[in-house]
Amino acid sequence: MRRSIATVCVSGTLDDKLTAAAAAGFDGIELFENDLVVSPWSPKEIRSRCADLGLSIDLYQPFRDFEAVPDPIFRKNRDRAERKFDVMAELGVDTILVCSSVSPESSDDDELAAAQLRLLAEKAQERKIRIAYEALAWGRHVSTWDHSWRIVQRADHPNLGLCLDSFHVLSRDVSPEGIAAITPGKIFFLQLADAPYLRMDVLQWSRHHRLFPGQGAFDLPGFVGLVLAAGYDGPLSLEVFNDVFRQSDPARTAVDAMRSLIALEDGLDDARSTQDRPIRRLPGAPELTGHSFTEFAVDGRSGPELRTALRGLGFTHTGQHRTKPVELWEQNACRIVLNSAVTRPGAAISAFAVASTDADRSLRRAEALAAPAHPNVREPGEAELAAIIAPDGTSVFVTRPDNDWRSDFLPTGTTPANTTGLLTTDHLGLAQPFDNFDEAGLFYHSVLGLEHLATEEYAAPFGMMRSRAIATPGRGVRLALTVALLRRGDWAPAVSDPQHVAFSTADIVATAAALTLPRLPVPDNYYADLAARFALDDDFVATLSRYGILYDRDTTGGELLHLYTPVLGGRVFFEIVERRNGYDRFGEPNAPVQMAAQRHQRLTTDDPA
Amino acid sequence: MRRSIATVCVSGTLDDKLTAAAAAGFDGIELFENDLVVSPWSPKEIRSRCADLGLSIDLYQPFRDFEAVPDPIFRKNRDRAERKFDVMAELGVDTILVCSSVSPESSDDDELAAAQLRLLAEKAQERKIRIAYEALAWGRHVSTWDHSWRIVQRADHPNLGLCLDSFHVLSRDVSPEGIAAITPGKIFFLQLADAPYLRMDVLQWSRHHRLFPGQGAFDLPGFVGLVLAAGYDGPLSLEVFNDVFRQSDPARTAVDAMRSLIALEDGLDDARSTQDRPIRRLPGAPELTGHSFTEFAVDGRSGPELRTALRGLGFTHTGQHRTKPVELWEQNACRIVLNSAVTRPGAAISAFAVASTDADRSLRRAEALAAPAHPNVREPGEAELAAIIAPDGTSVFVTRPDNDWRSDFLPTGTTPANTTGLLTTDHLGLAQPFDNFDEAGLFYHSVLGLEHLATEEYAAPFGMMRSRAIATPGRGVRLALTVALLRRGDWAPAVSDPQHVAFSTADIVATAAALTLPRLPVPDNYYADLAARFALDDDFVATLSRYGILYDRDTTGGELLHLYTPVLGGRVFFEIVERRNGYDRFGEPNAPVQMAAQRHQRLTTDDPA
Repeated sequence: MRRSIATVCVSGTLDDKLTAAAAAGFDGIELFENDLVVSPWSPKEIRSRCADLGLSIDLYQPFRDFEAVPDPIFRKNRDRAERKFDVMAELGVDTILVCSSVSPESSDDDELAAAQLRLLAEKAQERKIRIAYEALAWGRHVSTWDHSWRIVQRADHPNLGLCLDSFHVLSRDVSPEGIAAITPGKIFFLQLADAPYLRMDVLQWSRHHRLFPGQGAFDLPGFVGLVLAAGYDGPLSLEVFNDVFRQSDPARTAVDAMRSLIALEDGLDDARSTQDRPIRRLPGAPELTGHSFTEFAVDGRSGPELRTALRGLGFTHTGQHRTKPVELWEQNACRIVLNSAVTRPGAAISAFAVASTDADRSLRRAEALAAPAHPNVREPGEAELAAIIAPDGTSVFVTRPDNDWRSDFLPTGTTPANTTGLLTTDHLGLAQPFDNFDEAGLFYHSVLGLEHLATEEYAAPFGMMRSRAIATPGRGVRLALTVALLRRGDWAPAVSDPQHVAFSTADIVATAAALTLPRLPVPDNYYADLAARFALDDDFVATLSRYGILYDRDTTGGELLHLYTPVLGGRVFFEIVERRNGYDRFGEPNAPVQMAAQRHQRLTTDDPA
Repeated sequence: MRRSIATVCVSGTLDDKLTAAAAAGFDGIELFENDLVVSPWSPKEIRSRCADLGLSIDLYQPFRDFEAVPDPIFRKNRDRAERKFDVMAELGVDTILVCSSVSPESSDDDELAAAQLRLLAEKAQERKIRIAYEALAWGRHVSTWDHSWRIVQRADHPNLGLCLDSFHVLSRDVSPEGIAAITPGKIFFLQLADAPYLRMDVLQWSRHHRLFPGQGAFDLPGFVGLVLAAGYDGPLSLEVFNDVFRQSDPARTAVDAMRSLIALEDGLDDARSTQDRPIRRLPGAPELTGHSFTEFAVDGRSGPELRTALRGLGFTHTGQHRTKPVELWEQNACRIVLNSAVTRPGAAISAFAVASTDADRSLRRAEALAAPAHPNVREPGEAELAAIIAPDGTSVFVTRPDNDWRSDFLPTGTTPANTTGLLTTDHLGLAQPFDNFDEAGLFYHSVLGLEHLATEEYAAPFGMMRSRAIATPGRGVRLALTVALLRRGDWAPAVSDPQHVAFSTADIVATAAALTLPRLPVPDNYYADLAARFALDDDFVATLSRYGILYDRDTTGGELLHLYTPVLGGRVFFEIVERRNGYDRFGEPNAPVQMAAQRHQRLTTDDPA
């Protein structure tokens, strides 16, 4: 299927937008009128620029407040439309979006609306132009797809059809099921947008919170299936804008957009595939069985700090890379790689590795979804270890379950002591760049098959935070993605973009007793409140308090016991978790406690971070 | 009246918050439980810290999901409350906020709610604690103030009263009028918050969009009047949080908060003043009759650039400061001061001056409202010229209408030519720092008496913008304050924090013809669209296009014709406006055209800004 994107989806001038759309591989664009109005290029120059970039102009949009008005206004509106037809002729675009009127001058009169749209269609026919009529969800009299379809049927003109926008359809209570029965050929255009479910004014919801397919809560494969069932054969076109995308790098946003359409097409039902236009399938996402290792980039100061911490956590330096200044530290199935070859100050999670049941297929899928490949600098004799680059810049290696990559490390001869009972990498916590939070969710879901478990917001000491829990179906790989609701300002003194690795234990009290590194101090007030909130046994609370263990309980009795180390190297820390009774989250209610304690730690130590 | 602030109003740790509240002059605080829970200080240490800072702890809050539950849950809840009473005893606070339950375990049973609250009040009485019951606007069964009052009356216990929060009261449709008839002494606590009117889920509205009194749309003087009429004699306490304040500098936010309470008290009806607690009045805001001058700080590169531009605008260098490297440029009542004494790169509006009918009183009012004073470095013989510092750091001088400050300048001997017909300074356009936009609105309103005309949002090429038009009642002084809806990211390449001065003319075409400096180019597409939108005469549009004049028309036939210069010195520009038929805004619909043109200008010139 052809893939298009409305110019309003990305930031910048028209030049920025077209360049980004072409680079991301789109076939065409919807030209948003305001982008033309502010452009110094004439319509002919825009046409020629699009042709040079290999982009068709699939739609000119929007034309507003046209129909169901008194005759003098109708004549003015028709003149206004004729002027736009002139522009369209120069642009070489044959379809214009006319959205249902929001004007107080319009009346609730389907017959008048249909008659005036028919007159417009007649004018359009002379110019070989098609009118795609769309019900805005907040249209004054016409606000549902079925109402717009009744008007188009009543007008009954070959140059008048429908534009269906998934946001306008799915944000309303009217069922979309009847779309499949629309007369073939009468859906002139299809605009796609996802969105979270929000209880707010629908115009504001639309204006500030649209998302690319797969980033929100709408059933877009189902919706597109209905439209295709009605014989629609135009492009799948994105009409998405929100406060973040409007100011993000357009090149990045366009790739994110393209990824969403590729994944959407892959999710369509086989019954929607036709000979003319077969559905393009992605290699299926193989199951990920676990975290193979996490790599930290360290410098001369943070390296020793992390080594001391790893020893305190009971890790052993078991391997040294054959050719690079890279160390392997292990305890049971927990593996940390310290890489001193990178020359950034401080410490950071530079890469993590997940074990795939079919690493080759995982990588083919990633490539098909426009995931950037990590440049592979493999020395002779080293294991083939391929990686992709996640939206936050972290490299994600995909390894085989047999961990053949370990052969790149020469054994140090030291046997892991496994003294503290850490078993596996439970999850990673990764603060995301502000502009790329929704992109990251779609990336991990579409590329690696991680499911969205929950998104929560909480007030942290230095601003509102959003946290998204994602994991593989079998919970082999879990990630906690976080972002501040607003880009951080100068005041915010907390650790910026913190990252952490959480290890699992079957007995956190025994593990805590065996640790030989400082834990993050937890205030007594926290335990007093905890005891009151959960009506916990005094001895139990005393034990938690003694070891600085935090506690959470879900509604079905699942329990999380977890503790944190202080921040190391200015940005990273470790967590130890014990999950009981199927607890499936990350202890989000305790995040503000952890963040405040890390703030206090920074105020009371010499840590320069 | 005593003034309090909830610790949740400002960002940071409890230490940051208490320090900020005390520095801003608050008498007391509401201690938000989460701030205590994450604090390493024990309750006794918090008590002692507050005492040292001269802050009383007026309320402990909130206690949730207590009432109207089955007996086993009730017993647990009472135990939970007892634990909080223990904490309160250590804190030395005698009032706790209990908000209406949102729990599915609670039932719609006023009798049960009242009985259980009465039992709690009995326990509280033993501890000399008062229970302030508050109806959350989204409470499960109790969500209006009158409902909470019926329950408190039914429970009928001296230690049980009401907490009224202006947000919870005014966000609902129930009239607040009956509040004045509440039994004296039964309103235990008053929490104040303003908010814009928004059509959205009330919990989200409350959580993300509260504002300090005077920054939103609620009638808070009216509301407080009703509460005082009921004999309330506790503090006026702020309970305000939003996404911006949660991450802003707490010291700044606390001053903004204090200013809002001072202005609120000043706005209360005389009938609410009592012998015991007289309403403190501010010096009235004198009328501002106009902009006296605007001062640009310039450096060695931007100075010549601005001088050339001023000459091109028809200005004359008429005066030289007696002691400083400061020039006065004039045309009719338009006055620009170029100050080369400041050593910042580029150009910026460093100050502006407004003429007050009573400059001394204007300054006394500013001082009473905690407006920071500009350090006055007056040389002997110079005019007394006092200034305050606006939230964006700009100095605001208050001058006398006779412009005696001009005597500080020695005449250059050159007579103003007035060749281009510029008459007065029409308005200033000032992009505000992201964290201080609402603060700026309150500042200019309370300190200088500027009224809020309108707030608009529009999609600009590099993000959503919010624009607020404010002006004096007589329109002598107008300001356009703008801010990006999100703090700008790395990508956004537009001019950051642009500032401009707009001059008025009675004939913009004649003025434009007389200008001898480049204008900002306006795309032909803009004029094609303009002609279609407003059905304008072709000759008129041709004239606009010839001179790069933009056009707007309001709903009552008022018209604005305006044009812009390119950006100078990396950040500033000039505008010329002709207002017709009472047009009272700033041509906001044209802002994206102007911003895109400035972006194109920067891409096509050597301007290093």
